[in-house]
Amino acid sequence: MRTLLIENALVAGMRSADDLHPSGAVWAEEGIIRALGSEARAAAAAAGARGEPVERVDAEGLWLFPGFVQTHIHLCQTLLRNGPDDLPLLPWLKTHVWPGEAAHDEETLFLSARLGLAELAAGGTTAILDMGTVRHTDAVFRAAEASGLRVTSGNALMDDPSTNPPGLFAETEEALAEGERLFARWHGTAGGRLRFAWCPRFAVSCTDRILRESASRARAQGVLVHTHASENRDEVELVRARSGRANIEHLRDLGIAGPATVLAHVIHTNEEERQLLAADGTAVAHCPSSNLKLASGICPVPDYLARGIRVTLGADGAPCNDRLDPFSEMRHAALLQKVASGPAALTAWQVARMATAEGAAALGLGDVCGTIEVGKRADFVLLDPSAGFARPTSWRDDPYGPLVFAFDRGNVVETRVDGEVVFHRDRRPGRGLAPTASEIEAAAGRLRERIAKNGRREPSPPLEGRA
Amino acid sequence: MRTLLIENALVAGMRSADDLHPSGAVWAEEGIIRALGSEARAAAAAAGARGEPVERVDAEGLWLFPGFVQTHIHLCQTLLRNGPDDLPLLPWLKTHVWPGEAAHDEETLFLSARLGLAELAAGGTTAILDMGTVRHTDAVFRAAEASGLRVTSGNALMDDPSTNPPGLFAETEEALAEGERLFARWHGTAGGRLRFAWCPRFAVSCTDRILRESASRARAQGVLVHTHASENRDEVELVRARSGRANIEHLRDLGIAGPATVLAHVIHTNEEERQLLAADGTAVAHCPSSNLKLASGICPVPDYLARGIRVTLGADGAPCNDRLDPFSEMRHAALLQKVASGPAALTAWQVARMATAEGAAALGLGDVCGTIEVGKRADFVLLDPSAGFARPTSWRDDPYGPLVFAFDRGNVVETRVDGEVVFHRDRRPGRGLAPTASEIEAAAGRLRERIAKNGRREPSPPLEGRA
Repeated sequence: MRTLLIENALVAGMRSADDLHPSGAVWAEEGIIRALGSEARAAAAAAGARGEPVERVDAEGLWLFPGFVQTHIHLCQTLLRNGPDDLPLLPWLKTHVWPGEAAHDEETLFLSARLGLAELAAGGTTAILDMGTVRHTDAVFRAAEASGLRVTSGNALMDDPSTNPPGLFAETEEALAEGERLFARWHGTAGGRLRFAWCPRFAVSCTDRILRESASRARAQGVLVHTHASENRDEVELVRARSGRANIEHLRDLGIAGPATVLAHVIHTNEEERQLLAADGTAVAHCPSSNLKLASGICPVPDYLARGIRVTLGADGAPCNDRLDPFSEMRHAALLQKVASGPAALTAWQVARMATAEGAAALGLGDVCGTIEVGKRADFVLLDPSAGFARPTSWRDDPYGPLVFAFDRGNVVETRVDGEVVFHRDRRPGRGLAPTASEIEAAAGRLRERIAKNGRREPSPPLEGRA
Repeated sequence: MRTLLIENALVAGMRSADDLHPSGAVWAEEGIIRALGSEARAAAAAAGARGEPVERVDAEGLWLFPGFVQTHIHLCQTLLRNGPDDLPLLPWLKTHVWPGEAAHDEETLFLSARLGLAELAAGGTTAILDMGTVRHTDAVFRAAEASGLRVTSGNALMDDPSTNPPGLFAETEEALAEGERLFARWHGTAGGRLRFAWCPRFAVSCTDRILRESASRARAQGVLVHTHASENRDEVELVRARSGRANIEHLRDLGIAGPATVLAHVIHTNEEERQLLAADGTAVAHCPSSNLKLASGICPVPDYLARGIRVTLGADGAPCNDRLDPFSEMRHAALLQKVASGPAALTAWQVARMATAEGAAALGLGDVCGTIEVGKRADFVLLDPSAGFARPTSWRDDPYGPLVFAFDRGNVVETRVDGEVVFHRDRRPGRGLAPTASEIEAAAGRLRERIAKNGRREPSPPLEGRA
């Protein structure tokens, strides 16, 4: 049996703000947490007495947190990092992201996903909800399988020919069939680490039929629906022009609502929409860096939390960030609400919860990860408060302030999923999966060549002229 | 003669956005840049031919930028990092920062400054404008001398007994005499790296007399005045209640204005004040993390720039940040203006300028550092775009987007001041100056002990009851 004892860490279980265990210990068998504290030490001692091999990690001086959960990522966009930085959502999609995604083949998409997953692991992220692009989504799952991370993804559904560029469009039945194929091929594989989600891109890109089918199939299959909603004012206006409804209402009319639904961004909402989000238990993926970079707005997180709406965190795609770094997202989330709503608007504890337990719950993984508890998977990150420049940490009794404001990726020692190391600071990142600089730039170059070729063949997407 | 050739870097000279030199070279003699490009290589070859020893750095694949300049830092507060994170300015000063500063002795202040300077060097910062605390300012200068960084600092002037806590108060003549002593002792030492500035804390803490004396003595001595202004609405109201004037007008009435003046924050200003800032050439130190964390507000940077007001960047003190990281400040500065004023409100190029050339100019060091030019000091940072996860960088022709949005401290390879290494990623930070984790926590513990003792002796500062 594969066993693991981590001992002497400050264990932040994240079930409550005082779920803190100095000199804590975690015992895992086959990647599942089976004991904590003195019972963990006793279990390890018993296994040792039976002559069984035990992996022991002395985490003296380190902090053990549940692995970070990011509920909105586009691995397919990692290769599009460092694009234009002065555009709002719709022109940015049209001129950079959509041509880039349309230019992917299986190989560049695989590399983009490897790069993103290596970065996520290096930042202590153990689980993500991803949105693929229209084609080649097997490449994302293959990279996810190899990475060791807990990944939920699906092909982006973009079936409205009037709003999508020809190169990034799949007709309704073809798109649904591709989703069914991916569900059958990948959902529940790799010991349950990989899961499929229905991913209609956003209401603007989708026919009502595919939105409705996504919701009903997801419900029947017990999988998530993952889409964007109310990120940008122009988007909200487009949806209203198309449907006559507010965006959240429109999605809900078609069945996209409820606790197995993750809506990315959700910035521009009215009172009725907020009441619906709360009543339905729909989860919000807050992406503060992205919302700032695309000038989308400031998500009203404290209001949502006061209403009981589940709010989680995500870095979004690399080109609107340009990092996939949970520390940047936690810090931005906390700081932004302070200036928007006062210095006590959102505590470091609340932000840390969003990045762990709330994220896991939104992904339907509340029994699997997101806290350090017996029976859950051994998905965690070890952090070194003495690395970099985060000390002193002793002015407060809790680790949440330093985690959110002072730490960065330099504080990550190792990241584990199912008890297996997916990143260690002294080893090559991403289990050797991270492509080299020249591989990355060569692949980006191939994308640009194909974009130039596609540009000669295809009319530009008609999105901008609408609304 | 001490000579240095850096070659094969992408040199970003920062004089203009297209001041970019792939496979560039920099030649320095005695810490001063004497040639660039092919002339630099020729100078090195000639020195080699004469048999002179030349330090050669092959910076293939690296980016060379002028060292970052931070125009508002409190080294005395580094030991106060990770304090309360839910308070606005005035209660936060009263309950955490002022008691902490008052508890310093020479030894804890020296350690606080060492820690801050090591962190600054590790982030590529080469020059700062610092504000000391009321006492023991020699300790800051001693640490600065040892660090190799270019540091301008002075004792904080807090001479109004009605607004300052007894432990952090110095009577007007005593404070001025201390400033004169520090000027005489430190200004222009360490080859000009160390300089004195007059540092009245903020109008609320100061008598009119000390504000006026700071300005007139600074002018006579040719040194800077460094103060806080219009950071917080309550502060602005306090100043109006005391002086009957808007804050910037009040400071200007007393002589605190002009190009040798750096005002930190400057968020809450009216039309007349902005006109005065522009007309006088007064520089603004924008501290975005601090402004967010203390819920102070969003500095109207694009408006200031449109008026020709010089805007620069600073991390402020560690406890309102909790980093001294120019990458965090550049990123926050850029992102914040996008959401406040649109996606093109402040370009990455403008932000990079604020962090380099504009900062140097505000510090009166426009002829010394801030750009890569012949005749300036060899103050620069070498950045590795392949470190961490900042690639690809090839979607754009300039390095400013990646610098501002994707890079973090993990991209810093080495930092040099006067051509001397003050940080290298493979060596112990801060020239061995960085205290260890246990030294840091022990010193913070001593501060807390003294705060507890002082608390029994001293009434709390009366600030909060005013206005």
